[in-house]
Amino acid sequence: MNEIRPIEWANGTLRLLDQTQLPSEEVFVVAHGYLDAIEAIRTMRVRGAPAIGVTAAYAVAMAARDLDVTDRKSFLRRLSEAGSEIKAARPTAVNLMWAVDRMIGIANSEADMSTIQTRLLEEAIRIEEEDEEINRRMGSHGIELMPNGGSVLTHCNAGALATAAFGTAVGVIRAGWEDGKRFKVFNTETRPFLQGARLTAWEFKKLGIPSTLVVDSAAGMLMRKGDIGCVITGADRIAANGDTANKIGTYTLAVLAKENGIPFYVAAPISTVDMSVPHGDQIEIEQRATSEVTEFRGIAVAPEGVEALNPGFDVTPAKYITAIVTEAGISRPPFKDSLDQAVNPV
Amino acid sequence: MNEIRPIEWANGTLRLLDQTQLPSEEVFVVAHGYLDAIEAIRTMRVRGAPAIGVTAAYAVAMAARDLDVTDRKSFLRRLSEAGSEIKAARPTAVNLMWAVDRMIGIANSEADMSTIQTRLLEEAIRIEEEDEEINRRMGSHGIELMPNGGSVLTHCNAGALATAAFGTAVGVIRAGWEDGKRFKVFNTETRPFLQGARLTAWEFKKLGIPSTLVVDSAAGMLMRKGDIGCVITGADRIAANGDTANKIGTYTLAVLAKENGIPFYVAAPISTVDMSVPHGDQIEIEQRATSEVTEFRGIAVAPEGVEALNPGFDVTPAKYITAIVTEAGISRPPFKDSLDQAVNPV
Repeated sequence: MNEIRPIEWANGTLRLLDQTQLPSEEVFVVAHGYLDAIEAIRTMRVRGAPAIGVTAAYAVAMAARDLDVTDRKSFLRRLSEAGSEIKAARPTAVNLMWAVDRMIGIANSEADMSTIQTRLLEEAIRIEEEDEEINRRMGSHGIELMPNGGSVLTHCNAGALATAAFGTAVGVIRAGWEDGKRFKVFNTETRPFLQGARLTAWEFKKLGIPSTLVVDSAAGMLMRKGDIGCVITGADRIAANGDTANKIGTYTLAVLAKENGIPFYVAAPISTVDMSVPHGDQIEIEQRATSEVTEFRGIAVAPEGVEALNPGFDVTPAKYITAIVTEAGISRPPFKDSLDQAVNPV
Repeated sequence: MNEIRPIEWANGTLRLLDQTQLPSEEVFVVAHGYLDAIEAIRTMRVRGAPAIGVTAAYAVAMAARDLDVTDRKSFLRRLSEAGSEIKAARPTAVNLMWAVDRMIGIANSEADMSTIQTRLLEEAIRIEEEDEEINRRMGSHGIELMPNGGSVLTHCNAGALATAAFGTAVGVIRAGWEDGKRFKVFNTETRPFLQGARLTAWEFKKLGIPSTLVVDSAAGMLMRKGDIGCVITGADRIAANGDTANKIGTYTLAVLAKENGIPFYVAAPISTVDMSVPHGDQIEIEQRATSEVTEFRGIAVAPEGVEALNPGFDVTPAKYITAIVTEAGISRPPFKDSLDQAVNPV
């Protein structure tokens, strides 16, 4: 399998597969410093909660490397400021905050100023490597949820492109397929940014897993007709009670799944679980530029001056979620308990 | 009010506002004969169930005019063949079948061959005029369903552009607004053809009714947040039991509305009710070209060769529908009885 790796650390720069150009072109943007990395996150050249986390870790490492300060206290203050800038790139995916906090924690714990920069780069590389391992474990755990026969629906892109490698929801689908299970895959195009059409369909093609693309609003009809065996998506942040923030439209799919008696699964690393947030309504939802809705590649698709709303995410209440797959295993309701066990294993 | 009229009969030709070019350009295509009209229906230069019906009526009138046959029997046979071709232009909207059957019925009942062509043109004009009257009556009936305060969500385009004038669902919204009620309007972009973004947003702008555009999959989040007071859509065909075929995504909105305790209304002329179809699963659903999903104005948005499905419509079971507004009034469940009363008044 030719693995898809959207993030590459090479020669002191961060090479990011430019996901705004896929599927027509496979080109990389190069982040030479942490500000470049912030810009790449903000413009969604790199996206997907775990991939944003890995990028943020390298961004902190680059910020540390480029700091021309020898005084430890000033260094840590300046690094913390850079960390705050990185965290502000996008508000909803908690992996971004998690990765920055982990990196800053390492910096604070490192007494020796001569090795701190090396130590931070090593930590970023570790976060990247761990992400792939975690996703592969998640995939193994999730195999039992995948049907043999029937079909699976996924939304947005929770594949290798959204992570260091392997993917979360798409990783579970892949693990099921590689385990020999056979099923149809449907994936939504995912407006407005078309991550499903542009990225997920491209990944399934690379993986050799046959998939069928539909507009977001066709998923309901497929479910009602009995064409969908289960739904699996990624997550950008999971509250302590299991409420899950994910790409806009996820809530809709979960309601439709419940109405049609179809299991609805979420696959995400434990770093996506935010135990500091008791329920989903406290998760900040990013409002993105309305031009993503009113224009397509600069061509107006709505009358000039039309008002629009473009929430990037929605929150799916835990009651619609059948199970959450993490690297610790399969958590089932009540999620308050099962997620706590996953996050804080005895 | 500067009325939007997408269909104009002028100098023996049918001028159709080219809805594929809106909102960037207001240009007309001219149908010189019935084959041109079929092509305009098929390519969705004219769309919306009632507008397709009116166009079909003029198409039959043009077919009759252009028939170079003086023998009555041959004339009627050839006209019936043209009618079948017109009916085949699109399969789901029953108004197309209804209008052709009404026109053919007139031809069959007309004994005098010297006046038959004039009579058919008069009937097409009558169908167009009736459509506007019907929509205005529907609007008056629907006022009571519109909130004063709060907000209304509509899907696709069920406005003047989908009819001879005034619109169905948008007509009800307009009637409520003109009655002095004040509310917010949300409208979905309606993938893949973007009738909401391109057409409905354009109509609301012309009407001076403030509206906010969202992607289809954002409607659920708005409903859950309590931002939507009611949903109203048009219909392409309503079965005798109230099951309603309408633009893909309508079923999803109806399920979301039910889940969130929000009324879901349908507005459509009685010509949309197909009493010959007992329930919705017997309505043929048009499968359109997948390039509507995989390309945008010729630009690929999905990898080459990706498989896609593009159902144009879905069926909303009657149990999700709070009320159906026709020119006869407001029909409520059980629709089997209330629609029967609307279609066959005592």
